Amino acid sequence: MSSTDTTDSSPQRTARLLVRCSDKPGIVATISNFLYNHGANITALDQHSTDPTGGTFFMRLEFQLPHAELPPSVFDRSFKRAVADRYDMDWRISYPADLKKVALLVSKYDHALLELLWRWSRDELPAEVTCVISNHPDLRESVERFDVPYHHVPVEKGRKAEAEAKMLEILKEQADLIVLARYMQILTGDFVERYTNRIINIHHSFLPAFVGAGPYRQAATRGVKRIGATAHYVTEELDGGPIIEQDVIRVTHRDSVRDLKERGGSIERDVLARAVKWHLEDRIIVHQGTTVVFA
Amino acid sequence: MSSTDTTDSSPQRTARLLVRCSDKPGIVATISNFLYNHGANITALDQHSTDPTGGTFFMRLEFQLPHAELPPSVFDRSFKRAVADRYDMDWRISYPADLKKVALLVSKYDHALLELLWRWSRDELPAEVTCVISNHPDLRESVERFDVPYHHVPVEKGRKAEAEAKMLEILKEQADLIVLARYMQILTGDFVERYTNRIINIHHSFLPAFVGAGPYRQAATRGVKRIGATAHYVTEELDGGPIIEQDVIRVTHRDSVRDLKERGGSIERDVLARAVKWHLEDRIIVHQGTTVVFA
Amino acid sequence: MSSTDTTDSSPQRTARLLVRCSDKPGIVATISNFLYNHGANITALDQHSTDPTGGTFFMRLEFQLPHAELPPSVFDRSFKRAVADRYDMDWRISYPADLKKVALLVSKYDHALLELLWRWSRDELPAEVTCVISNHPDLRESVERFDVPYHHVPVEKGRKAEAEAKMLEILKEQADLIVLARYMQILTGDFVERYTNRIINIHHSFLPAFVGAGPYRQAATRGVKRIGATAHYVTEELDGGPIIEQDVIRVTHRDSVRDLKERGGSIERDVLARAVKWHLEDRIIVHQGTTVVFA
Amino acid sequence: MSSTDTTDSSPQRTARLLVRCSDKPGIVATISNFLYNHGANITALDQHSTDPTGGTFFMRLEFQLPHAELPPSVFDRSFKRAVADRYDMDWRISYPADLKKVALLVSKYDHALLELLWRWSRDELPAEVTCVISNHPDLRESVERFDVPYHHVPVEKGRKAEAEAKMLEILKEQADLIVLARYMQILTGDFVERYTNRIINIHHSFLPAFVGAGPYRQAATRGVKRIGATAHYVTEELDGGPIIEQDVIRVTHRDSVRDLKERGGSIERDVLARAVKWHLEDRIIVHQGTTVVFA
Repeated sequence: MSSTDTTDSSPQRTARLLVRCSDKPGIVATISNFLYNHGANITALDQHSTDPTGGTFFMRLEFQLPHAELPPSVFDRSFKRAVADRYDMDWRISYPADLKKVALLVSKYDHALLELLWRWSRDELPAEVTCVISNHPDLRESVERFDVPYHHVPVEKGRKAEAEAKMLEILKEQADLIVLARYMQILTGDFVERYTNRIINIHHSFLPAFVGAGPYRQAATRGVKRIGATAHYVTEELDGGPIIEQDVIRVTHRDSVRDLKERGGSIERDVLARAVKWHLEDRIIVHQGTTVVFA
Repeated sequence: MSSTDTTDSSPQRTARLLVRCSDKPGIVATISNFLYNHGANITALDQHSTDPTGGTFFMRLEFQLPHAELPPSVFDRSFKRAVADRYDMDWRISYPADLKKVALLVSKYDHALLELLWRWSRDELPAEVTCVISNHPDLRESVERFDVPYHHVPVEKGRKAEAEAKMLEILKEQADLIVLARYMQILTGDFVERYTNRIINIHHSFLPAFVGAGPYRQAATRGVKRIGATAHYVTEELDGGPIIEQDVIRVTHRDSVRDLKERGGSIERDVLARAVKWHLEDRIIVHQGTTVVFA
Repeated sequence: MSSTDTTDSSPQRTARLLVRCSDKPGIVATISNFLYNHGANITALDQHSTDPTGGTFFMRLEFQLPHAELPPSVFDRSFKRAVADRYDMDWRISYPADLKKVALLVSKYDHALLELLWRWSRDELPAEVTCVISNHPDLRESVERFDVPYHHVPVEKGRKAEAEAKMLEILKEQADLIVLARYMQILTGDFVERYTNRIINIHHSFLPAFVGAGPYRQAATRGVKRIGATAHYVTEELDGGPIIEQDVIRVTHRDSVRDLKERGGSIERDVLARAVKWHLEDRIIVHQGTTVVFA
Repeated sequence: MSSTDTTDSSPQRTARLLVRCSDKPGIVATISNFLYNHGANITALDQHSTDPTGGTFFMRLEFQLPHAELPPSVFDRSFKRAVADRYDMDWRISYPADLKKVALLVSKYDHALLELLWRWSRDELPAEVTCVISNHPDLRESVERFDVPYHHVPVEKGRKAEAEAKMLEILKEQADLIVLARYMQILTGDFVERYTNRIINIHHSFLPAFVGAGPYRQAATRGVKRIGATAHYVTEELDGGPIIEQDVIRVTHRDSVRDLKERGGSIERDVLARAVKWHLEDRIIVHQGTTVVFA
């Protein structure tokens, strides 16, 4: 989870490659030769195969590219032709120097939102936070202190389509990633489809337990001895998307629902911050409703 | 979680009191006066109220009783008349020197069973293990090494009633507690009813997630990032009884279902051993489908 | 860890009693009778004995006192005469409605400080934060946003006595508790003595490992696989005071010292917030260099 | 942590490569080309660099080698000439089908020993356990049940050299790895030197806290709120060798030293078993007093 590899102070350009394809002999050799021939030095490499024979192959590479060599677009096209097409890869090359644009959505609870803004302001989240959108006006002041624009987009009963249209207008070219930092409205399938695997939500339970509303109350009623939080990509199925990260803490019969909320809030903040950071560092590949996380 | 208080080397007799009743002023004073007047010294006390006013009151007391004073049965009757009836209490007095009789049920997986037998042989579980019953013959040798009788009671298709009748015969006066240490048969409501809040099961998931069969496979399919185990009292509802203890460990995309089983086995053993120990030490009160655990 | 018991909306007054004394029969009866006779209703009770016979006895009680009954000072005097003197108790009665005054000391790192201020602003820490004192001017703006006065008291080389005198002047009647939220100056014995068991420090290691400066660097050099944080009361011995709370997280060879700082910061915040909350809720008794925490 | 890759049911031979060398461009390409040209298919790959430029490079590869291709010794020589010498590598190729020989050393506590023997008997530890050596006769029966020879080698005062000579005689060609499963004698430098980075010890504290004797008592005296266990390679410095794995659990003021021993024992067993498994799966590289663990 080294942060050192995201600096870019040399005449080198840091790049990252994410790959998914059918597993075949020679993939690593082909990719590493391509990089070597382009003067790139691999500084981090993770790989996973679902099966030693005939499975799916996943890889994350981080490498230093001489600035002089090639403009990114040319390098990418060259990789496509020489490597990706040959193995029929799902792939993506990204450059940490091009910060991802992040939009944060929130309702009234500020803890998850502020955690992200804090970490971002301390350079712990490599991103450009472009805006906060909320269906309530309450958190404007807290957000504007961070010099981030705050958009109040109320969602009136029966007029969700309108609200989402307005949000999409704001988000246009402003969001490589959308984070639902306790945004309590359900997004429509139309909206979600535009940002496949690019909307992260924090759910305040250890999924798949306690889907839906009031998970802390559900947890108290069931009498669980640990409560948790789950960060996941949003899909059309409520709280059913690919899980990125989860954590739990011990609770006891002494904890009221109010205690669970307070103590769980701390886990929500940590879990969401980790998930967002991993996304920003290109560490996540979605596959068949689950995630491969090269953390 | 002190073990020291279970020793009984002095001319004192250790006793424990568990109480549940409607909360009212004066309960603690009444109980502690009663004990003081009978020469008892309180060595541990835990209390819980669901609400400061009008809730339910729970208490666990551990105390030293002079041997000379009164025979247990007289002391118990005296407590009933002077205290319990007055506050309409659910209550129980137990004496650690009278070891609880424990029967273990198992199918083929031996890890949970051996963990319990091994801790018991090291004096870490204050109990008399009276027998092991299994629907398979496989583990006889492993069990008999601990000088514990092994009963093979096969459960043939459509003849569960017969098998349970045979088991009840074996268990008669041999079981204050039944532990399902990976016993893979579902017990009938009739059977369960005879041992209300006295059958502990270990389920290999973080309940209420992944109820039923194949929880590790379910976990792999859903792509959770932690797997867990849950010890609970058995009720008629499958995997729905009051939860006693839970724990989880981190897993990743690298863990195959076989890995989950191996790694989860370690958590199952720990969680079950803790739950059984707490039961044996009279630390658990069941209330409205949940547990108060004075651990 | 219920928060419900700290509310005080009824015509009742919530009070808390902390007791330490030599263990003897009859203590619980004496205390509970006293409370019952004064119309008090016990809502929470925790007790601990270091030994069933001849040890030290600790107790925390929370109770509701009818407002009409007695003014606090009279009640306290009455308790002293009728109970405390008889058993030669170290004791303290406190009233949650009288918020404890808290002063926060900080240097340049803001994460622990902001965590406390933020939880306090959300009513998660029952206190009156009276001021922040820092040996640096940097965090003034962040603090003043919370409407808390910020005092810059530089500590110049060889002139620590002067600086501490100035701080004591500011703290006069403003601090029932002092929290060192990453305050990087060592306080003199003189200063510490004035606030015995009332200064909480957060040390960024799992004590007693890595005492002193640069614990994250020490941890990386030693190659530990978990890093932690420790909240403790400050004594004259550097990082040697009674430990209140500790926690750890897994780290790997991939984590640079910078990563350890970032990831450890999250643990520091949680551990410190828990310790401060427990102190404010009168849950901690110091005994022979360690703490009894009735959490 | 997949176990699937250790099976060897195909006409393929599974092999593993561990590498440490100065980081330079082209290493990955060179290695992967070599493997590709020998018909090998890479199924797992982990890499770590201490620094993007000029650091140390570490890699673990798992690959399938066609049986027909080359005998292992020829393949190894070929790798040395074509790759290892060129980059001045520390390297090792191993074949999981050739089980590592493991000798277990123990004194009187059986929990760590039995945990390893259990897991081994369930095929969870890929090894050939060749013998158990103890300075006490007590555990003979427990060990022989697993069909493992038990050697009683007492260590008399002032005659350690003799005892070690006897042990070395027994260990001759019987130990690729020695595990100290609570062996309470300190081994001499001479002995340790013969098995550099091949002796794993479990220490019952969270190192570097509580080095030496009686760590649970030390922990109780210091009043820590978590206790732990540490598995490390043995060096001449007592409890100072490279740490492989650590874990902790929460404890409270209620836990007596006896409780700490019982509860800590559970952590010791887990931590040691993980460390041993990682060693057996060739996941550990020692570097400058620390470990890189590709888990």
